[in-house]
Amino acid sequence: MTAEDFRTSAHAAADLVTDYLAELPARPVWQPMDEAARTALLDGPLPAEGRPLDDLLAAIGRDVLPYPMGNGHPRFFGWVNSAPAPAGVLATLVASAMNPSSAGGDHADVHLERAVVRWIAELVGFPHPAGGGLLTSGTSMATIVCLAAARDRAARRAGVDVRADGLAALPPLVGYVTGETHSCVRKAAELLGLGSRHLRTVATGPDGRLDPDELRAAIERDRAAGLLPFLAVASAGTVGTGAVDPFEPIADLCAEQGLWLHVDGAYGAFGRLDPAIAHRYAGLERADSLALDPHKWLGVPVDCGCALVRDAGELRATFSLVPSYLRDETAGSLGWFSEYGTEQTRPFRALKVWATIAHRGRDGLRQDIARCTALARKLGELVASDEELELLAEVQTSIVAFRHRAPGLDGPALDALNRELPAAVQRRGRVFVTGARLGEREMLRACLLNAATTEDDLRLLLAEVKAAARELRS
Amino acid sequence: MTAEDFRTSAHAAADLVTDYLAELPARPVWQPMDEAARTALLDGPLPAEGRPLDDLLAAIGRDVLPYPMGNGHPRFFGWVNSAPAPAGVLATLVASAMNPSSAGGDHADVHLERAVVRWIAELVGFPHPAGGGLLTSGTSMATIVCLAAARDRAARRAGVDVRADGLAALPPLVGYVTGETHSCVRKAAELLGLGSRHLRTVATGPDGRLDPDELRAAIERDRAAGLLPFLAVASAGTVGTGAVDPFEPIADLCAEQGLWLHVDGAYGAFGRLDPAIAHRYAGLERADSLALDPHKWLGVPVDCGCALVRDAGELRATFSLVPSYLRDETAGSLGWFSEYGTEQTRPFRALKVWATIAHRGRDGLRQDIARCTALARKLGELVASDEELELLAEVQTSIVAFRHRAPGLDGPALDALNRELPAAVQRRGRVFVTGARLGEREMLRACLLNAATTEDDLRLLLAEVKAAARELRS
Ligand SMILES: Cc1ncc(COP(=O)(O)O)c(C=O)c1O
Ligand SMILES: Cc1ncc(COP(=O)(O)O)c(C=O)c1O
Repeated sequence: MTAEDFRTSAHAAADLVTDYLAELPARPVWQPMDEAARTALLDGPLPAEGRPLDDLLAAIGRDVLPYPMGNGHPRFFGWVNSAPAPAGVLATLVASAMNPSSAGGDHADVHLERAVVRWIAELVGFPHPAGGGLLTSGTSMATIVCLAAARDRAARRAGVDVRADGLAALPPLVGYVTGETHSCVRKAAELLGLGSRHLRTVATGPDGRLDPDELRAAIERDRAAGLLPFLAVASAGTVGTGAVDPFEPIADLCAEQGLWLHVDGAYGAFGRLDPAIAHRYAGLERADSLALDPHKWLGVPVDCGCALVRDAGELRATFSLVPSYLRDETAGSLGWFSEYGTEQTRPFRALKVWATIAHRGRDGLRQDIARCTALARKLGELVASDEELELLAEVQTSIVAFRHRAPGLDGPALDALNRELPAAVQRRGRVFVTGARLGEREMLRACLLNAATTEDDLRLLLAEVKAAARELRS
Repeated sequence: MTAEDFRTSAHAAADLVTDYLAELPARPVWQPMDEAARTALLDGPLPAEGRPLDDLLAAIGRDVLPYPMGNGHPRFFGWVNSAPAPAGVLATLVASAMNPSSAGGDHADVHLERAVVRWIAELVGFPHPAGGGLLTSGTSMATIVCLAAARDRAARRAGVDVRADGLAALPPLVGYVTGETHSCVRKAAELLGLGSRHLRTVATGPDGRLDPDELRAAIERDRAAGLLPFLAVASAGTVGTGAVDPFEPIADLCAEQGLWLHVDGAYGAFGRLDPAIAHRYAGLERADSLALDPHKWLGVPVDCGCALVRDAGELRATFSLVPSYLRDETAGSLGWFSEYGTEQTRPFRALKVWATIAHRGRDGLRQDIARCTALARKLGELVASDEELELLAEVQTSIVAFRHRAPGLDGPALDALNRELPAAVQRRGRVFVTGARLGEREMLRACLLNAATTEDDLRLLLAEVKAAARELRS
């Protein structure tokens, strides 16, 4: 293959993605794949012989591009999946051609990652000591990184070197979450060997926010039982309703009790950019660690999470395999990123973050985010003023939690209807929304992440939910 | 920004990467960044205002592309970092424009990941039950995934539900590695709360391969001490010398003793495709799990690792947060990928794997890999026949471990010279090689992963090593 062959295919790929992105809004948001298309992908045999690049791109255009997940579309309101930022998409191409490992050394990717981690911290108002963070594949991994540091610090304070000796040498370490905490925290606790049984669920108030008095009571109960409280997890935007926990009183309590305060800002931390809701985040900067996702509200193409810590030394103490006497500390060297997290070979995620932020600038991002929270409040009003619908939580950020209130249904029957609604709406292909449980109730939740969404799209969303409910009931 | 603006920039990006890749072989492999260029990246302030896409691409061309890590160049022999496969680079662009989360659901990315995981298993001759693996960010993560499954099975057999109860409820679990095992295994053991003290280093023979008799003796010692042996780790290509452990006797012993056999094939598993060395891998298919890296020998752009297991149920039992009575088992459904590993949001890594494999086909990959092992054997001969150099290990796969044998130097002085050699060679900019310790000795190691490398490049490598040694000694 010559350079000119590659050039031809690269331009073909450029057209393929341009057309794809341009045509997206006019297409159904999502459709189930037909059996033949699905089987073609699932069951394709390992090819013995190769195929030219142009042939491959044609196959991608025919067999892959027509079957997206649906995010990217202005009427996709599901989970927390954003449209890809155009600058991030093009940066991804360049990053993969350079193909470095951003583990360490003196090349562009490593230095750019230091810069964008600092930018991310600045965007959300989190302190940033040099070395105090790194990019990860998402918040699930960032949470594992942060909670490992929390575990190691707690063990050290109890006189145990957990890296060398493991957890068998310690009484159970106990952490605190709420019923709204994302499941990645439980996953991290299990992976780290802490045991999900040692994550206590602290009660929330009616607004879905952690109740600090309940947290204090739980800590005191566990201390009395001889256990080691070590961690509290608060959310800067829960996945269910977008609730932001009250960081100030939680941080006070953690400081008093010597607990590590971890904040899950996967979905919502960047909401702090919006002056209309920034006050909700007061005290976020007091956390010991913050996990957040540029691949959510910023639209950086998946994957891109970020772990930030107040004390860079805690991360390095948890992950570095370089004995301290061998570390390169000259000129304040921070060493390798692989000393601060789980990955050895690390992709050049920084370029897509850099391009995404530089393309919009802080002010442009602020506008986009403020537009989403305003749309969410508008949607909340539309729901509240609709007799067939019920708003289930105050709109704190850009998630709207609601349900259909079918006349004559309640209890289990109403839950059953709302449980089936999201799939019924999705099948209609005009809007995409997902469901969740809120306490005991089944609900729909719409997550607003796309500044291209319009008020008409919101009206269509509600019309589709009501139409799907009629369909299900008839 | 209109679709036509994006198209213009996408074509500019296509030219940028085409030119970059075409000009790479004529450039220095790597050069230290000058202070101003480094500072520009490191210290750039968070931009308040945005910039147009074409301006961003110009900045990338000026400030980023000139400073690569060096892999991609045919005379890069460092660590285990390959040149990006052209088809993989273009697939990355399309994948990021689609921007799905390959967590679950009915869209192209999910189905394609099922297919390519099966292809990878077939390429290396590992059994593949449906659901028996997933793509990860690299082998470090794949190792965490596999060892978590091993830990959970061992705990279950000891009557403990480690996910719920944690490790505090168990006597120490003990694993076995060799002095040549990659450090990611230690990192995984620490993260999982096992404690690195409970990883025993089993002696290797003179060929760097694990000695099964020593393994048996170590297991018996630990059982006698009341500990719980649960894991043996073997390598399908060590990072230092490319040694392949003897899988058959190790698998026999693991079967007899009830240990989980994990194989680290990050660098070397795909070597099995080369008929000239395939015999070394006999018994690989008997492992309980295999971690390997399409982003290494296959050239899939970083990041892309893969975890394979013989028993898909073990993975799901370790990671699924979906209670079993709620799992979607209709029509043999495998559920979500997020039930099998650590990541919730998961990037569309499958497309670059699919494109890389489909572009070359199994036969093309076999040719490329066979070329690398032949080049490595040739380099081994050149070293062995050179009086100034010393071959330190048999060339089993495509890594050549050697050192400079400066006349009149030995012991610490010889080690000091060889320790300084890699950086001295790198600074000269013509070839890139890295060093490592082999037992007590400092060495250089050249890793052959690029089928575009020539025999002339090998001669230049050795000439450069000798020239750098003369420089250092004068
Ligand atoms: C609040 C919250 N936390 C954590 C996560 C997990 O993040 P990721 O999918 O990037 O691993 C999510 C994902 O939706 C989330 O919304
Ligand atoms: C033998 C071996 N195992 C594990 C790893 C770690 O893999 P990764 O860097 O993909 O995490 C490497 C990386 O070089 C390796 O060579």
